[in-house]
Amino acid sequence: MAARRKDTKGRFEYSGLDRIFHEKARLGILTSLATHPDGLLFGELKELCALTDGNLSRHLQALADAGLVQLWKGQKGKRPQTLCRMTAEGRRRFLDYIHELERVIGDAARAEKSKPKSARPGEEGWAPA
Amino acid sequence: MAARRKDTKGRFEYSGLDRIFHEKARLGILTSLATHPDGLLFGELKELCALTDGNLSRHLQALADAGLVQLWKGQKGKRPQTLCRMTAEGRRRFLDYIHELERVIGDAARAEKSKPKSARPGEEGWAPA
Repeated sequence: MAARRKDTKGRFEYSGLDRIFHEKARLGILTSLATHPDGLLFGELKELCALTDGNLSRHLQALADAGLVQLWKGQKGKRPQTLCRMTAEGRRRFLDYIHELERVIGDAARAEKSKPKSARPGEEGWAPA
Repeated sequence: MAARRKDTKGRFEYSGLDRIFHEKARLGILTSLATHPDGLLFGELKELCALTDGNLSRHLQALADAGLVQLWKGQKGKRPQTLCRMTAEGRRRFLDYIHELERVIGDAARAEKSKPKSARPGEEGWAPA
């Protein structure tokens, strides 16, 4: 149980992992949009994230309501289309979220090096619960 | 809308983000346990993750049911204690999850460099939805 003293209250709380970004599908949507700054059509986003129409619509609406993405209506040939873009605020907050995620990765990297000595607790007197 | 052709179906699906790990509180619990391979007492884990007793208990039970952590009962002085440890399988699967998270970070890093040219879509004919 080394390294315990270095760790303070809330050390692993990761309070910067804003719930609006952290859901798995949203992470896909936002990374897609962040890497395509000029926007993606609804159908493209759906393909890239492997989401259903309904699921993608719901997430986009929630993200638009929060001011993180903007939806634009237009035509491509004769078909109506929706273009999805990240807002400047969405971009800034998403990158903050990503930096907190980097802290998680950094912490977990320490774990790759430290393996348990045995499958049982090191001290005597413990029984499986 | 550059870089679109490189991106294939499901490119941003991140299917390796196993839901059992991805919840924010669980990420804290598992990173704590992964970096303390000899285990942490319930009270220590609670402090590190800034969780309530009830919340931590529920998450630990779910993780124990999935074979990812093991709970041990014992005494510390006169007080009953619970020691929490990651199992070998939990450790392996958590590190797989972390590697998928690294893919998200890598993708988002591309985004830091690519900024939108303007706040409006590049082509004409789009109106805010």
